[in-house]
Amino acid sequence: MLDSIDKYRVLDWLGFSYDDKLGGYVNRETGLPLTLFYDDEKDQICLLDQNRLPFEMAIWKTDDWQKCAKDAITGMITRGSQAIGVTGAYCVLLAAAHNRGSTKKRTVENILAAAEEIRKARPTAVNLSWSVDRMCTAARNALKTAGDVYDHLKQEADRIFIEDLFISRALAENGSRLIADGDVILTHCNAGSLATTYGGSALGVVEYAYLKGKDVKVVSKETRPRSQGFKLTLWELMTAGVPVAGITDNMVASSFERFGITRVLVGADRITKDGSVANKIGTNDIARMVAFYNVPFVVAASYSTLDLDHNGDEIPIEERSMEEVFLPYHYEALEKKKKGIISEEALSHWPPMDRVSTEMESGKIALYNPAFDVTDSRLITTIVLDIGMYMPERICTLNKERIEEKVSQILERYAKAV
Amino acid sequence: MLDSIDKYRVLDWLGFSYDDKLGGYVNRETGLPLTLFYDDEKDQICLLDQNRLPFEMAIWKTDDWQKCAKDAITGMITRGSQAIGVTGAYCVLLAAAHNRGSTKKRTVENILAAAEEIRKARPTAVNLSWSVDRMCTAARNALKTAGDVYDHLKQEADRIFIEDLFISRALAENGSRLIADGDVILTHCNAGSLATTYGGSALGVVEYAYLKGKDVKVVSKETRPRSQGFKLTLWELMTAGVPVAGITDNMVASSFERFGITRVLVGADRITKDGSVANKIGTNDIARMVAFYNVPFVVAASYSTLDLDHNGDEIPIEERSMEEVFLPYHYEALEKKKKGIISEEALSHWPPMDRVSTEMESGKIALYNPAFDVTDSRLITTIVLDIGMYMPERICTLNKERIEEKVSQILERYAKAV
Repeated sequence: MLDSIDKYRVLDWLGFSYDDKLGGYVNRETGLPLTLFYDDEKDQICLLDQNRLPFEMAIWKTDDWQKCAKDAITGMITRGSQAIGVTGAYCVLLAAAHNRGSTKKRTVENILAAAEEIRKARPTAVNLSWSVDRMCTAARNALKTAGDVYDHLKQEADRIFIEDLFISRALAENGSRLIADGDVILTHCNAGSLATTYGGSALGVVEYAYLKGKDVKVVSKETRPRSQGFKLTLWELMTAGVPVAGITDNMVASSFERFGITRVLVGADRITKDGSVANKIGTNDIARMVAFYNVPFVVAASYSTLDLDHNGDEIPIEERSMEEVFLPYHYEALEKKKKGIISEEALSHWPPMDRVSTEMESGKIALYNPAFDVTDSRLITTIVLDIGMYMPERICTLNKERIEEKVSQILERYAKAV
Repeated sequence: MLDSIDKYRVLDWLGFSYDDKLGGYVNRETGLPLTLFYDDEKDQICLLDQNRLPFEMAIWKTDDWQKCAKDAITGMITRGSQAIGVTGAYCVLLAAAHNRGSTKKRTVENILAAAEEIRKARPTAVNLSWSVDRMCTAARNALKTAGDVYDHLKQEADRIFIEDLFISRALAENGSRLIADGDVILTHCNAGSLATTYGGSALGVVEYAYLKGKDVKVVSKETRPRSQGFKLTLWELMTAGVPVAGITDNMVASSFERFGITRVLVGADRITKDGSVANKIGTNDIARMVAFYNVPFVVAASYSTLDLDHNGDEIPIEERSMEEVFLPYHYEALEKKKKGIISEEALSHWPPMDRVSTEMESGKIALYNPAFDVTDSRLITTIVLDIGMYMPERICTLNKERIEEKVSQILERYAKAV
């Protein structure tokens, strides 16, 4: 059933119109853009350039799969696990578009080789591997069946795109049942529409509840070092019209009093079988503080973040570049030099590059940059997935077959509705 | 006894030498500068320019009391309650230096008028009012006694300077008894030597313990929005040789595991009679998290922060300029424009100035910037003061007379030791 749906019908059903000025699709109800789409006529991938947010909203386009892998996926023009997955699928399609005219066998070989490059563009992104795998399978199937390789891949990529939209909508609907009228929600990082094709993750839930008429407000933590809370979440919610406050990461206890927070709602990078949640660094800090205030701590994420083979304490913590931590001080030094507040001879970096260390030792400054932390399941009230709502200790009851069955039901349900 | 001590003898006893290159005094043991001193020959006030830290260490000098009040005190070249107090006293002395030659009565009138201007340079700084009061009393006393007005004021300002050095040393000695060999201390903001004339507040304790041979390490939180943790505490401890790690404000729970934190040590803006502590925004967040880890939460501060007339819940929370919160995004936008990452037409500020609000409403972004929060006494293990060590619930046993007596004893003790 899903294979026969036209993606433009799905976009219309979700409320999207093409915006000529932007050069991309914008939702008529929320004002938020699609983070990605594939231009069938020009064989171009079009991405909301998240590196330019919040300073400007612009669409980045390319017909070159290598540029897409390097600049867009590695370079984080697109971000968020689900959005990266769908971008990866269309990136493989770009490779197919530029291998037309060769023999069928040769074409598929070239596509599979490109796919391996694309996979490496963000090696730890599980969704990217998963979508590239699906595209590789489609390419191999094209060899066994009649019809054009490109057409085969096009259908699979569009299906991945539509699935992401449906799955995001399912999460938004499930999660919004948890949102009470009058809720003031504390969130962290950008687990939002911007991290999916559209409308998914924790903020998708809030935006959907708001559209359905619920009085809901959000307090967004800055989320140093990359500050996605200030840069993306504030932009996303301001655009969608949801009342929002921005706080630095030091103002959590204070903002409970100032804004009367009633609920915490965050996304997840990975949910393990014991119901623990790996999410952006600082999530665990919130969970520990929130225990004092007796408000629910809710996690909203897609089934694709489930890792039923591991427990929370088995997850290796990825460390990211130190530069993310000290970049603001570099910007500050440059501006202070320009304005003559500090001399030309002053440092342009802080800490000094030759004093940065990974271990604490005299005369050095140790820095580290863990990408996420793990919140213990006992601190989590509810885990909302697209496939249902769970107490953390019930995550272990899920298995691959049950998940696949639930996902199929969701996709069929929306395919009928469109 | 204190009146007869020469300030240069005190500086030598504390280990200071004049550094020609810097143009200021530097401690031979810690490598840290005096944050302020008065050049008797040139009648100049010389301040460590904290606006240029950590990018460069430089001394700012002036012989103009108005410039000192406006640029140095209001403009925060000098900062920290104790350092501001002593700077204020010398600022009044500068006014006296430039009123020589008039009649004695006229001179005192001019000084008293200047003093009122100086007091207004940081209207909420209790120590500034207190030191300006002392200088005003000295000026009035000069009218009743023989001798030069300037000489009278000079003696009082030097006495305030020396008292601050002695009181800071008393706190360092008291506090270091609490530091265990092998401690890994989490701290917040810059409650350091830089906030006093020298060697005081929470980091003064750590630096003293380190000098005395204790194995002690520090984890410093960035402390957004002004980031004094990253800019001042990392600079101060790196300079003093104390092993230090810098973390963003989101990494508290994570850094307990990474660095094995054994103790929290923070300063205080105000300690109330119920043993609650007002300190830099975010202190209360730490106290709530730390309850999970069962490590002591220690506050170290001078007796001058005591407010025995109020309880913690009676303190009005000062709100500071929103600019402090969004300045890094302004710097980022400017740099991204320069590099062509965003277009010339893109925003140079985030959030857009016309969208910033104080309340949460659709289409706006609410921001607020509380200068501090209040940590409940039940979350505090020990309060270390220069005048002794207290359980929070014992703060109420102190009164003005007992404090004055204890301070006198401390000052006499060090005056004998020098």
